[in-house]
Amino acid sequence: MSRLLIIGGSDAGISAALRAREVNPGWEVTTLVADAYTNFSICGLPFFLSGETPDWRALAHRSVAEIEAQGIHLALNHTARAIDPVERSVTVETPDGALARFPYDRLVIGTGAEPASPEIEGHELPGVFPLHTMDDSFRVEAQLRALLERAQATPARPHGAHPHALIIGAGYIGLEMADALTHRGFTVTLAQRGQTVLSTVDAPLGHRVTQELERHGVEVVTGAAIERIVLDKETPGRLSIQGRAGFQRVADVALVATGVRPVTRLAQAAGVALGEGGAIRVTRAMETSVPGVYAAGDCVETWHRVLGAPTYLPLGTTAHKQGRIAGENAVRAGGGQSEFAGSLGTQVVKVFELAIARTGLLDAEALAVGFAPLTIETSAWDHKRYYPGARQLQLRVTGDRTTGRLLGAQIVGDWRGEVAKRIDIFATALFHEMRVADMSDLDLSYTPPLSSPWDPVQMAAQAWEAEHRRLFRER
Amino acid sequence: MSRLLIIGGSDAGISAALRAREVNPGWEVTTLVADAYTNFSICGLPFFLSGETPDWRALAHRSVAEIEAQGIHLALNHTARAIDPVERSVTVETPDGALARFPYDRLVIGTGAEPASPEIEGHELPGVFPLHTMDDSFRVEAQLRALLERAQATPARPHGAHPHALIIGAGYIGLEMADALTHRGFTVTLAQRGQTVLSTVDAPLGHRVTQELERHGVEVVTGAAIERIVLDKETPGRLSIQGRAGFQRVADVALVATGVRPVTRLAQAAGVALGEGGAIRVTRAMETSVPGVYAAGDCVETWHRVLGAPTYLPLGTTAHKQGRIAGENAVRAGGGQSEFAGSLGTQVVKVFELAIARTGLLDAEALAVGFAPLTIETSAWDHKRYYPGARQLQLRVTGDRTTGRLLGAQIVGDWRGEVAKRIDIFATALFHEMRVADMSDLDLSYTPPLSSPWDPVQMAAQAWEAEHRRLFRER
Repeated sequence: MSRLLIIGGSDAGISAALRAREVNPGWEVTTLVADAYTNFSICGLPFFLSGETPDWRALAHRSVAEIEAQGIHLALNHTARAIDPVERSVTVETPDGALARFPYDRLVIGTGAEPASPEIEGHELPGVFPLHTMDDSFRVEAQLRALLERAQATPARPHGAHPHALIIGAGYIGLEMADALTHRGFTVTLAQRGQTVLSTVDAPLGHRVTQELERHGVEVVTGAAIERIVLDKETPGRLSIQGRAGFQRVADVALVATGVRPVTRLAQAAGVALGEGGAIRVTRAMETSVPGVYAAGDCVETWHRVLGAPTYLPLGTTAHKQGRIAGENAVRAGGGQSEFAGSLGTQVVKVFELAIARTGLLDAEALAVGFAPLTIETSAWDHKRYYPGARQLQLRVTGDRTTGRLLGAQIVGDWRGEVAKRIDIFATALFHEMRVADMSDLDLSYTPPLSSPWDPVQMAAQAWEAEHRRLFRER
Repeated sequence: MSRLLIIGGSDAGISAALRAREVNPGWEVTTLVADAYTNFSICGLPFFLSGETPDWRALAHRSVAEIEAQGIHLALNHTARAIDPVERSVTVETPDGALARFPYDRLVIGTGAEPASPEIEGHELPGVFPLHTMDDSFRVEAQLRALLERAQATPARPHGAHPHALIIGAGYIGLEMADALTHRGFTVTLAQRGQTVLSTVDAPLGHRVTQELERHGVEVVTGAAIERIVLDKETPGRLSIQGRAGFQRVADVALVATGVRPVTRLAQAAGVALGEGGAIRVTRAMETSVPGVYAAGDCVETWHRVLGAPTYLPLGTTAHKQGRIAGENAVRAGGGQSEFAGSLGTQVVKVFELAIARTGLLDAEALAVGFAPLTIETSAWDHKRYYPGARQLQLRVTGDRTTGRLLGAQIVGDWRGEVAKRIDIFATALFHEMRVADMSDLDLSYTPPLSSPWDPVQMAAQAWEAEHRRLFRER
């Protein structure tokens, strides 16, 4: 019986295993999971820490039993130590510390990403935490609970009623944690190196996110390049977080959320070539440079459909797609021909009452790769204003001035305003390389409580079209 | 100066006027409006009658001032009586009852639809109402108010505390009015000729709508073919509604919502050819059979993109699109070449807490036109179940067994579950003739409070794919 071995039990690895069993049940499929947390939703950690998901076990996309029911062997607490691509085997450290050899016919590497080592002095101090694994989240949770209990026991403490958390980095995890810790009863400072929060969207939308954070009491400090963390001298147990231009705050806990980098040590040692962003180089069939070895998820470079080139863009959705293709191709006779269709960089995040979504390229990104972008911002109500509860959405559409082609879109608005699935209309249009003007041809659904006869995505496209006409076609 | 004349001041007519002014400001644009209610949202009438939109003026998509600001002449209370296509003029009855001649270079007919005369004896009795125009809604509103006041004044009336409304027809308007009148304090009976409510979706989804209606106290009677309405003999002022198989109810007010038919008398008299469903025949450029005369909206047949043929499918979204194309082509030098891309029949309706949406063809519709449809129903949570408030969606996907092509989709679920914009992802995929299996390639947005790494639309597509494989590719 042919053997598929998978290193990694998160999104990419489990997707590969499920798909392999689906398309070719004749293969034996084994997945090595370095810890005990198979197929956990890393994106869910902020909701566990906010208290909205009290039981961490609920964060599993699928239970061990559900995965095993598909005929997949799960080797928990088994850590891959070396790949031998000639002999086709992986040396594995088993739970009792012994080494075992796992042979394979095809291998899928899904080793994921890890927090980028911050160049911050003192990041290893107690009270300073990364947040990427279940174990990280247990450590953070224990610290949060201790701080809240202590605050409750000493209501008259000099630093105010609420313990103070400082979050370094205002990307998705940083923003979600600002929300989560506010929810939990912390005073929160969010320190961001750049000039706006959430650099994945344009500055005007980032500004609206800042307003939302401040409306909920979060202190937002932009242009704050953190350089060191030291134990505060005046208040034992507290941290002093210091940065360029005199930035200084004292906090009870610090979270470092400054991005991730691909985990590639194992692959590299086996001679697997790296590509964009230091991630594993893969074809669109998810093959690495080594025969019989596939890779997928946060450890690989990602084909970008609009750029027409690989990039490093680790996302859970992409990991699922890539894993599915790696698993399918690995077990097809003669090597499968399924190809990853490419990422559009579609993303959404909820921060307090706002959802912020994007797909495709920002204006600056489009310009950098040779497009001639025009970006237009417009506002529209999520549904007919005469029906109660209408919310204003801000939409930005980027299209090419020369070809009229849609290049990207961004939406920010109340999270109940179908922001997420509206960006998906743009994403589906972008997938098919539509022109902005042709979006008015889409037959989208309408009822007064949920949209308008022209959906906001079409109003935004029409605003782009009108400005484009004014600029380039005026008599 | 060239003159564009438009008959009709609702969605199609105003869209045509706005687009004409946008693409060619050199033309004089006049719109004849038969009443005083320009560009009112007919889809909003149920929300005016429910009390959710207390001021009927808010139902206007645009105010008269906004439309006139675009350089459009609005002739209110001007009714077109005859078109002379040789002389190129329209005879118009002015507000004082006189007749005037309005010459044109191009004409757009947007005369809309009217309630299909029900074959119900007694439908002209006081207390029996159609619901299609602003004037209809004022008459209904006056009656509702009178009944509610009378009920309040006689708390011990023998028929219970709530006045009783009977609604004939369980399409969009019928369902929305069942919701609206319950909201307003009526006891509601909904009588539907067919075996399920909302025949625009498959029976299992219609069944869920029935459950939702009943959960809110609406009596749903299917298979109820209403034949006559008479004044009730025992209780003066009340109506006795009678149908086949012994159906009989006594009610205080009856609404007839059994569909519409195109208004074509004016066009027919001018020699304009008719097509599908007795609607005005048009090319995809929205030209009628008469030179210089365009038509759009509920009075014309509609090109269906999946059928590849015209059909009669009056929808506000379509009227906006068709009007826009008619207006653009009418004022382009030499006749414009813009074409209506076609309807997919995308629709959504909110009934109490449910949204019900569809796009493309139902299984039976696909079969009737020669496809080999396979339809699979599946359930999925609208977002990760570990985040509070997850709601289960029911999705039905129809695809062609032979080609794998997506043919249609239906979704029902809590109206806050992004049902409407999820059907639009299917609609956009359908627009581009995607295969069901390829929907997994779409890069859709994900955050735990709003979706899953595979969006429910992709889970539904994958369920279809798995069943298709089981049926046709099993070894």
